Amino acid sequence: MMPDDMSRPLVRGGGAGGGAGGGSWGLEATSCEPGDPLIGILGTGDFARSLARRLVASGYHVVVGSRNPKRCSSVFPEDTEVTSQVEAVTHADLIFVAVFPEHHSTLLPLKPVLVRKTLVDVSNGLRMNRAGPSNASLLADMFPESCVVKGFNTISAWTLQVGPRDGSRQVFLCSDHHRAKNCVMQICRRIGFVPVDMGLLSSALDVENLPFHLFPSWHVPVLCTLSLFVFFYLYNFLHDVLHPFVKEGKSVFYRMPVETLNTTLPSVALVMLALVYLPGLCAAFLQLRRGTKYRRFPSWLDRWLTRRKQFGLCSFLCAALHAVYSLCLPLRKSARYALLAAAVRQVSDGVEDAWVDEDVWRMELYLSAGIMALGLLSLLAVTSLPSVSSATNWREFSFIQSSLGYCALFMATLHTLLFGWDRAFQADRYHFNLPPTFVLVLLLPLLVLLGRVALFLPCVALRLRRIRRGWQKNQHVRFTRLNDGVEDVSNV
Amino acid sequence: MMPDDMSRPLVRGGGAGGGAGGGSWGLEATSCEPGDPLIGILGTGDFARSLARRLVASGYHVVVGSRNPKRCSSVFPEDTEVTSQVEAVTHADLIFVAVFPEHHSTLLPLKPVLVRKTLVDVSNGLRMNRAGPSNASLLADMFPESCVVKGFNTISAWTLQVGPRDGSRQVFLCSDHHRAKNCVMQICRRIGFVPVDMGLLSSALDVENLPFHLFPSWHVPVLCTLSLFVFFYLYNFLHDVLHPFVKEGKSVFYRMPVETLNTTLPSVALVMLALVYLPGLCAAFLQLRRGTKYRRFPSWLDRWLTRRKQFGLCSFLCAALHAVYSLCLPLRKSARYALLAAAVRQVSDGVEDAWVDEDVWRMELYLSAGIMALGLLSLLAVTSLPSVSSATNWREFSFIQSSLGYCALFMATLHTLLFGWDRAFQADRYHFNLPPTFVLVLLLPLLVLLGRVALFLPCVALRLRRIRRGWQKNQHVRFTRLNDGVEDVSNV
Amino acid sequence: MMPDDMSRPLVRGGGAGGGAGGGSWGLEATSCEPGDPLIGILGTGDFARSLARRLVASGYHVVVGSRNPKRCSSVFPEDTEVTSQVEAVTHADLIFVAVFPEHHSTLLPLKPVLVRKTLVDVSNGLRMNRAGPSNASLLADMFPESCVVKGFNTISAWTLQVGPRDGSRQVFLCSDHHRAKNCVMQICRRIGFVPVDMGLLSSALDVENLPFHLFPSWHVPVLCTLSLFVFFYLYNFLHDVLHPFVKEGKSVFYRMPVETLNTTLPSVALVMLALVYLPGLCAAFLQLRRGTKYRRFPSWLDRWLTRRKQFGLCSFLCAALHAVYSLCLPLRKSARYALLAAAVRQVSDGVEDAWVDEDVWRMELYLSAGIMALGLLSLLAVTSLPSVSSATNWREFSFIQSSLGYCALFMATLHTLLFGWDRAFQADRYHFNLPPTFVLVLLLPLLVLLGRVALFLPCVALRLRRIRRGWQKNQHVRFTRLNDGVEDVSNV
Repeated sequence: MMPDDMSRPLVRGGGAGGGAGGGSWGLEATSCEPGDPLIGILGTGDFARSLARRLVASGYHVVVGSRNPKRCSSVFPEDTEVTSQVEAVTHADLIFVAVFPEHHSTLLPLKPVLVRKTLVDVSNGLRMNRAGPSNASLLADMFPESCVVKGFNTISAWTLQVGPRDGSRQVFLCSDHHRAKNCVMQICRRIGFVPVDMGLLSSALDVENLPFHLFPSWHVPVLCTLSLFVFFYLYNFLHDVLHPFVKEGKSVFYRMPVETLNTTLPSVALVMLALVYLPGLCAAFLQLRRGTKYRRFPSWLDRWLTRRKQFGLCSFLCAALHAVYSLCLPLRKSARYALLAAAVRQVSDGVEDAWVDEDVWRMELYLSAGIMALGLLSLLAVTSLPSVSSATNWREFSFIQSSLGYCALFMATLHTLLFGWDRAFQADRYHFNLPPTFVLVLLLPLLVLLGRVALFLPCVALRLRRIRRGWQKNQHVRFTRLNDGVEDVSNV
Repeated sequence: MMPDDMSRPLVRGGGAGGGAGGGSWGLEATSCEPGDPLIGILGTGDFARSLARRLVASGYHVVVGSRNPKRCSSVFPEDTEVTSQVEAVTHADLIFVAVFPEHHSTLLPLKPVLVRKTLVDVSNGLRMNRAGPSNASLLADMFPESCVVKGFNTISAWTLQVGPRDGSRQVFLCSDHHRAKNCVMQICRRIGFVPVDMGLLSSALDVENLPFHLFPSWHVPVLCTLSLFVFFYLYNFLHDVLHPFVKEGKSVFYRMPVETLNTTLPSVALVMLALVYLPGLCAAFLQLRRGTKYRRFPSWLDRWLTRRKQFGLCSFLCAALHAVYSLCLPLRKSARYALLAAAVRQVSDGVEDAWVDEDVWRMELYLSAGIMALGLLSLLAVTSLPSVSSATNWREFSFIQSSLGYCALFMATLHTLLFGWDRAFQADRYHFNLPPTFVLVLLLPLLVLLGRVALFLPCVALRLRRIRRGWQKNQHVRFTRLNDGVEDVSNV
Repeated sequence: MMPDDMSRPLVRGGGAGGGAGGGSWGLEATSCEPGDPLIGILGTGDFARSLARRLVASGYHVVVGSRNPKRCSSVFPEDTEVTSQVEAVTHADLIFVAVFPEHHSTLLPLKPVLVRKTLVDVSNGLRMNRAGPSNASLLADMFPESCVVKGFNTISAWTLQVGPRDGSRQVFLCSDHHRAKNCVMQICRRIGFVPVDMGLLSSALDVENLPFHLFPSWHVPVLCTLSLFVFFYLYNFLHDVLHPFVKEGKSVFYRMPVETLNTTLPSVALVMLALVYLPGLCAAFLQLRRGTKYRRFPSWLDRWLTRRKQFGLCSFLCAALHAVYSLCLPLRKSARYALLAAAVRQVSDGVEDAWVDEDVWRMELYLSAGIMALGLLSLLAVTSLPSVSSATNWREFSFIQSSLGYCALFMATLHTLLFGWDRAFQADRYHFNLPPTFVLVLLLPLLVLLGRVALFLPCVALRLRRIRRGWQKNQHVRFTRLNDGVEDVSNV
């Protein structure tokens, strides 16, 4: 059943230090480098140099193949042998191909010596979103008897040189040859990177396109934030700046940089926060209506569900900016001049104290609610940091993201309701017949909170619970049992 | 010495790509998948589906065993074979048991084909803090000739599907069968999770209870914060709100949402910060008194020492909220009305400038000290993020947590002392004969700072240093030598 | 080619659970512990105890060698065998040497039984920056027939006990014996740490000096921040506090704790931010002038380039403190007294409204620009957290650090320009003939922004692009081809 030659560990003759280690105890058969492979590098560019330096530093023996060995040897670390391409390839067990993909064909003369060797293609695509065949598959077509592994293209020469401190430590690898891929994975780990298996060489195009990605999961949330921002900014401009100018001829354009912005930011923040919890509600109601959880959600809902974190962080950014802008208000000259003018007016009117108790209470309450909401949002933002969330278990994570999240939404809505007080019912707040901004803003959050409360109704909650445990409408009980999946208290 | 059958690597006949990879070089014997195992999954629920999708995406061959293969095959990824339970189990090398634990007994007919196979029990307990035997040990009793591995119960179907981005990447595994556990570990790593070895199957109950944990290390610190909060809030309410109402009939209840809260928060923050450094002092003085470090601390002290980070973060949260509340003060209508009234009064009194130099200095100084304390606390909070602290070495970490921490405590205490100024000695500040809040608050921080200073006294410092290097009171010098442990500049 | 005895897996006779695991499927040959090694520990100090506890908890069999076994056995976990040194060493496969380095020589009698065994030296140097031979190499000289591995010295007993939660999880290992090192690496991983291969035993001195490092990459940036701080503080003191005192006899020393600090902090922040982007510009212009990227930068530039993140974070800290200080301004008694005095003056002057439109606009604009700059800097700071930046690919990281970074620099410069308005051209702002602070501060940022704009000029940009793809001045085209390195869109 087991071919003989598989148990034959082919240690390279002159292997470094292989035989020296303790031969008398139990971990013998274990691991990993019975002798380190001699690693070849074709190419003498920045990447080749940094790679050579890194490999040598991790204890590998490196031989560099160059068309012009004499000229290039000076730029490589001392322990590296720089020699002709043929010689390097002949000696090496595993070869990094660090030449531009358009020059891959210049390696064709090396074909005979490359048979059964591992070639690591580190090249990147030159254009974004290329469709054609990947560089790696072209290389594999050129050298069908070699084992081509795609990888390291997401790592810059800079990262190789200074170590994987900034940017990603992940090295995405794919290959049709398991063994070859495994060896490259081990090299990865040993030089301090984290290999990620991307499967067969057919994924090479994806891997080559990876470096061109620019926050793909943020496109929709950021676009959404910007659209809401533009909409609310224009609305507030109309309502608070243009209206007094048109109706009373009062020029208050100075409000645009701070005050209008500061009415816009919380509006965006609250609507975005509601958008974090809306898809979960949609999913729950869809499951309730369908009477099963075994039908896929529409794809827009699926995508939305996976983007909730990004929506939440956009919301937090707006909320935090809103806080700073609000705290800046009393700093401004305009606030100072207005205050002084009010003092003068109060003196000339002979009013000793203009205290309005309702005004005071309204403000104290909505300030406090706002700060609490910001505090909760900060906790949410902190726990969405990768290293923090990875230290929580699933129940903790869902507690924070769901319970704390709804608390934050509730506090933020309360903040806005208290800010509104009874102003929604005062006709003089409806400039140009448009309702004040907070009325528009409150629609969605209140809807989400009501929906959430609806899910707490015992009958609804029970039905949803059963559906999520696998129960299906219109189905025999026995069938339900057959779908005996482990419960998934799904995150939605 | 070595049984024959152990060296026999049983590679599955039709192993994928196993033989193809480079056979001519030195990493041959190394690693990991001479052929990938065929993985079976029993169960067709959410977890089973997500697991199948994930395994297939990582290049594994998956066969799903269902009681109703035809009905279920549509919901699994294309490359998955869905077949009867018997057939799946017969072919597979390793089987994930993804059925509810209460249905484990339905698998008994498969017993003969499960002999010597690995069963991974992914089930969770259904109740919190169960005491009884674990699901995994019950399964092991049912199938004594199979190798049961407990694990994956902390991973949700959602995480399996979208990848280990949110929540923990750790997969806790335990088993009495080393080899089986190792294989599951490798599968873990390959599909992107981090296996954590939890030892023998007797730990299965702990592993099954893991998902029910809800921030166990935070219980005491949060409870402590809340108790202090309630105490100080009531104290401040009595002192600042009820006293003027009772004594002068002045209704200042509007202070409750912001001002009273804002006196309470810094009190909690400072006391909590002192509680971070108190257990270290206790430990040091205990060691000094006992004259040895080789006796265990009482368990409450041990637990306290491990919770210091949580105490510190609670303190930081309160301090940050205090900062935001303070910055909000001039925003409030009440502040505006009070200022206007003061202006009117000043005009009617004919006072040109009411400048009091002492008041000005006091405030500038305590503001500055407070901001510095907040800055230092922020640094401490940032460095307690897992990814930041894991990038520091032990000396750096202890420098930050100890030196910077004491600086923060000193600045915060100074902030409070400057805030107090000479008010602790003014009789009219003692409402209801109760001292002002800051007097109460300062007791513990001053005690901690004094204790710390005491440890700096040369004689004390020397003795402590000797104790921490292993010296023991009342012991022969030779004995001390025998306890020749590597120095532990313990964190306390 | 392959010596026979290398394929002989020497499993220890009484190996725990080795034979039980599934023997019938494909992962047989794989991995790691065909039987766990019996681990010996010499020494009974804190480190030895914590290590023993940790190893036992991870399923290892541990035997402790003590000179006084009876006295010490009580402090070790139950499953640990405490016996004489000779006996422990005889049975164990791998021995942790946890005795003070000055007592290493007491182990010499054990020499015969230590032959071919692995010794892990966990000792630390006792002084900082020692030059002499490392403890590990001395140990290796003492026991030339054993395999000495250096490591675990960066791990404290505390970390071993509570698990690698705080501080670093990295265990730096070096040894001349590959196999021995690999086994220690596996033990590392199994007890929850991350082994880092540091190469041969000649690196042991570096490893032993590691725990003495105290933020080496922060020295220059922090020193730079402090120097700028002192310079600007003195300058501002002269300009804003001493000048009115000398010229008009006005004592405004109360400004020192808050106002002078608050003029100093943004100055430091902006200059430091400019210093983040200056080295990249220098590098680009150096490459343009040299006409090649294949000559090393001067070492100061190299070092500066690797410290940019630290410069940026220092800048952010100052900017954040500046924000808090600014927001505190209206809180102060001094602001209140000044405002009241202004109100009284305005009443007595009979001015109804002192509104100055230019003042208002200036302030609204520079506040808004400042908040935006702070927001961008916060984004930069968050993405420089290790766990966040490691989740971005290289293009995303460079987008944030370069594009967003220059945006932040631009907004911060705009903030300062708007703050300055036309005051740079008013003679009465030149106290003691010194220009106002913001004039000094603006020099460097404007220079950097101009330099960056210069690099956008088509001819310059094209040339730089070609150089970065490997083109060299004064070289034959064919030569350029020979330097066929993979493109490195270097980060500079």
